[in-house]
Amino acid sequence: LDYQHVQVPFEITLWIMLASLAKIGFHLYNKLPSVVPESCLLIFVGLIMGGIIYGLNDRSPPVMDSDIFFLYLLPPIVLDAGYFMPSRPFFENIGTILLYAVVGTIWNVFGIGFSLYGICQVKAFQLQDVSLLHNLLFGSLIAAVDPVAVLAVFEEIHVNEKLHILVFGESLLNDAVTVVLYKLFRSFCEMPTIKSVDVFAGVGKFFVVGLGGVLVGLSFGFTAAFTTRFTKDIRVIEPLFVFLYSYLSYLTAEMFHLSGIVAIISCAMGMKRYVEANISLKSHTTVKYFMKMWSSVSDTLIFIFLGVSTIGENHEWNWPYICFTVIFCLIWRALGVLVLTFFVNRFHVNTITSKDQFIIAYGGLRGAICFSLVFLLPDFHRKKLFIAATTVVILFTVFIQGMTIRPLVDLLAVKRKRESAPTVGEQIHIRFLDHLLAGIEDISGHWGQYYWKDKLENFNSKYLQKILLREYDQPKSSIVLLYEKLERKHAIELAQAGQLGHGPAHPSFLCPAFLCSSSDRTVITDQKLEDTLNPDALDNMQEILARNLYRIRRTGPAYNRHTLPGDSEPTEQAKEILILRHKSL
Amino acid sequence: LDYQHVQVPFEITLWIMLASLAKIGFHLYNKLPSVVPESCLLIFVGLIMGGIIYGLNDRSPPVMDSDIFFLYLLPPIVLDAGYFMPSRPFFENIGTILLYAVVGTIWNVFGIGFSLYGICQVKAFQLQDVSLLHNLLFGSLIAAVDPVAVLAVFEEIHVNEKLHILVFGESLLNDAVTVVLYKLFRSFCEMPTIKSVDVFAGVGKFFVVGLGGVLVGLSFGFTAAFTTRFTKDIRVIEPLFVFLYSYLSYLTAEMFHLSGIVAIISCAMGMKRYVEANISLKSHTTVKYFMKMWSSVSDTLIFIFLGVSTIGENHEWNWPYICFTVIFCLIWRALGVLVLTFFVNRFHVNTITSKDQFIIAYGGLRGAICFSLVFLLPDFHRKKLFIAATTVVILFTVFIQGMTIRPLVDLLAVKRKRESAPTVGEQIHIRFLDHLLAGIEDISGHWGQYYWKDKLENFNSKYLQKILLREYDQPKSSIVLLYEKLERKHAIELAQAGQLGHGPAHPSFLCPAFLCSSSDRTVITDQKLEDTLNPDALDNMQEILARNLYRIRRTGPAYNRHTLPGDSEPTEQAKEILILRHKSL
Repeated sequence: LDYQHVQVPFEITLWIMLASLAKIGFHLYNKLPSVVPESCLLIFVGLIMGGIIYGLNDRSPPVMDSDIFFLYLLPPIVLDAGYFMPSRPFFENIGTILLYAVVGTIWNVFGIGFSLYGICQVKAFQLQDVSLLHNLLFGSLIAAVDPVAVLAVFEEIHVNEKLHILVFGESLLNDAVTVVLYKLFRSFCEMPTIKSVDVFAGVGKFFVVGLGGVLVGLSFGFTAAFTTRFTKDIRVIEPLFVFLYSYLSYLTAEMFHLSGIVAIISCAMGMKRYVEANISLKSHTTVKYFMKMWSSVSDTLIFIFLGVSTIGENHEWNWPYICFTVIFCLIWRALGVLVLTFFVNRFHVNTITSKDQFIIAYGGLRGAICFSLVFLLPDFHRKKLFIAATTVVILFTVFIQGMTIRPLVDLLAVKRKRESAPTVGEQIHIRFLDHLLAGIEDISGHWGQYYWKDKLENFNSKYLQKILLREYDQPKSSIVLLYEKLERKHAIELAQAGQLGHGPAHPSFLCPAFLCSSSDRTVITDQKLEDTLNPDALDNMQEILARNLYRIRRTGPAYNRHTLPGDSEPTEQAKEILILRHKSL
Repeated sequence: LDYQHVQVPFEITLWIMLASLAKIGFHLYNKLPSVVPESCLLIFVGLIMGGIIYGLNDRSPPVMDSDIFFLYLLPPIVLDAGYFMPSRPFFENIGTILLYAVVGTIWNVFGIGFSLYGICQVKAFQLQDVSLLHNLLFGSLIAAVDPVAVLAVFEEIHVNEKLHILVFGESLLNDAVTVVLYKLFRSFCEMPTIKSVDVFAGVGKFFVVGLGGVLVGLSFGFTAAFTTRFTKDIRVIEPLFVFLYSYLSYLTAEMFHLSGIVAIISCAMGMKRYVEANISLKSHTTVKYFMKMWSSVSDTLIFIFLGVSTIGENHEWNWPYICFTVIFCLIWRALGVLVLTFFVNRFHVNTITSKDQFIIAYGGLRGAICFSLVFLLPDFHRKKLFIAATTVVILFTVFIQGMTIRPLVDLLAVKRKRESAPTVGEQIHIRFLDHLLAGIEDISGHWGQYYWKDKLENFNSKYLQKILLREYDQPKSSIVLLYEKLERKHAIELAQAGQLGHGPAHPSFLCPAFLCSSSDRTVITDQKLEDTLNPDALDNMQEILARNLYRIRRTGPAYNRHTLPGDSEPTEQAKEILILRHKSL
């Protein structure tokens, strides 16, 4: 037995396997996921696992490594979030999202930090050795809403799109603020004296970290799109570029201390439309599927690891500090949302209702990012207290808030997401209105979002598309693309229902008299046939006929390891079939 | 700048990126890949990279880590090979393949080992310090034909299926022999005395290592199939199980010193038919695509690393030893193939021609497995000589043999692969003949391959399918599955050609007089329409009409991170559409 040799990949594979099997297990028992969010169940599995490890080894189970979390587990989830981000609601509410993400997070950091410092001054609590800076540092890591936790819960409650994007967008974009404040306070903690210039430098960093992330992301995104222009002959490696470039954008941003989350989201959003146009349909399916699969596994692993890491002796328990942390987190978030929304509503026609505000405040879940950040803290004598407080806040928000938010949404009758996507007609009207509003804005001299969107679209079709798309000579509008997608879907459905093109074949074979009757020929012959033959025999006959009709075609090109069957010139084949059909008619 | 933090993933990503971009580069210039095999080009890129690294750092570039090769680069390639293995020719020739793989490899090991020992006895060559055991150890690592190199070259020359499977199957299955002999001689080298019982134990190990690998692989394969029975509600993680279980089978086999390659191949071949029946169509596309992508990248990385590792100061040059190694490798393989084929041909009707024998002998390419094994040797004073000899043999076989094999195949007019797959009719006949032969074998009391195949098929449908398949009540024959696949493909082709179902809509709108003419209605109306309208206008009209006909349908279900659009009950929707169509008629 040579376990040492295979240990690393073997254990990683086993953890992923455990995560996947846990997921299957929950879904086997249908009632469970509708009551308890999956994230809670996974943390629970983690707690049990941690308990077992603790019981067997008699020492704390290994905590989730912050490096593993930030380098390997977080990027797939954020990439998935960015790639499938509904871009319209996101850009429509970008102002509000940024306000919540930047001002709201700063508000929470300082609110929580200062009020906890106040608590520390009470002698009875024995917390006088926790300085203001340490409290602010703690505030900076506990204030940020966690995208992974928010996604996991909000996806299951199906609130309306605007509310969803407000909470989720905030949780993604506050990363830039968290990175800056956390690093700022951590370096302050290690400095002997703090000069005012350091504080100003910190403020300047906001813009560098955020905008730098966007720039890094967009440049990698456009490079990715440009690369996929040249992959026509080797379709097989197309999906790879989507993942490689996004991951590189994340790593590069992290390397320069910029916001990796912001970078990977900009990269994904920037590349999406061009890459989708360049790569083949099957590559696209692979990209989408693999992204979902990967993020889903990462997500599962994170929650299980959260549970495992909770067990052990890393904690220092101090009732007042921990309780007040939970209370302040709730209060400051609620206050922040109220105040910011008041200002937002003054400038918007489509206001955020008080019900929505409540859900935004209540949906401020904390998760694995706080947890990883608290373990990354430099060693000092109260680190274990911070770890305990962070763990309690995470468990409180994920379990209590996560489990009660669905009943609350039902109770308050919060506006839900519309169950179906807009029809093609609606989409055309929306498009039309956009152009109209852009025109009105241009005439009235008000440079609003429609004006800029129009300018951007112009720039895109004039320059970007020419550089980034393979077949620029035929730019397809999204409506035409949608139509093609619908056609394909419809065709597959018809093929599955066995209604494809064989209609003319069997009636003519069986009852030629009906051929010249009228336009509803098929209906009548079908009716007649079903009278004379039982459905099974009909099915059989149809199948035999269809099989013979297809004999002219081959089952696929010869085997080759680097091409996939069906890749080679489908149009050529389609033409050939059509010609043969015409001949046979 | 914090490079340390992201170094590992960053460098891995960059290497993969380099590999992918190199691949794109070759395909951009179309003529190159048709003359020089891709493997040669990649090694060449590696040599240049190695030269640059050597020039910049003034020390040897890092050699390919054997652990990385065996744990991360090799499994994807072997998994891909096993999953897409054409099982019929493989099992038809399994006896011949095993003979080449086991007896042929042992023949080569001892032949090369003993003759090199003979060379070492010549005083002028200054090699007297290389013992017989060391020569045999060297023989055991240099004798094995490499699956990665064979795949890379044979895929491009398109020889007939039997020839391909003989060389490729041998290269895969000789792993068990190589593992046993290599470990045996290595342990002998470290033992002070060798007892005869050790030699017998070594012989017994062949069976343990090979059959153990098959058992491990099959058990993981069936577990994988069983697991996919329960993934109906979470389609997104289905592809994961294929990869996880295969990889686990490889790692488990390696852990117990069994043959990992044999294990992963059995796992892939065992799970394939059940998994494919259980998982969704899109999951299946993802599995196929991702496997191809991954193996293609691994393959590329291996050849680039081979090139990089060649550069440096790891080599000890000894002309006679190196030249004689190359010569003996060629001679012993040629002799082995001749002798073994002589026996094989006596027992088969369908003999292996002398041309085929030449290609089998000439196609014995060595590759990265030898290279990794030679670096895994324990340190002794002639290790660098062995490294040099191995490098030369690999470069010789990949460059000289790899580049000349295609012209030789042309020159000898070796039977090529048939360009198209068999038609459905042919397949039905083959199936029929199989049943017939199984019956004849049963009556004549000769238990040949058809008899066993029939028994296995019976066992499969009686027990295995019931346990491993989700919807056992409707077992579909492969012909029906093929028919469904063809239908789907046809439907998509029709949709792309714009010929789907709109035929009846526009003629009735434009020229109702034609409706009752005859059965070739569509042709005539199309003809007429094209006379009166120019094609562009017709296309436009068709598009507008089609778009309006589709207004009743939605563009997709509401967004949810864990489901993919189009997953939800396609039959339901298809029915709805059919009902609406009937109503409109």
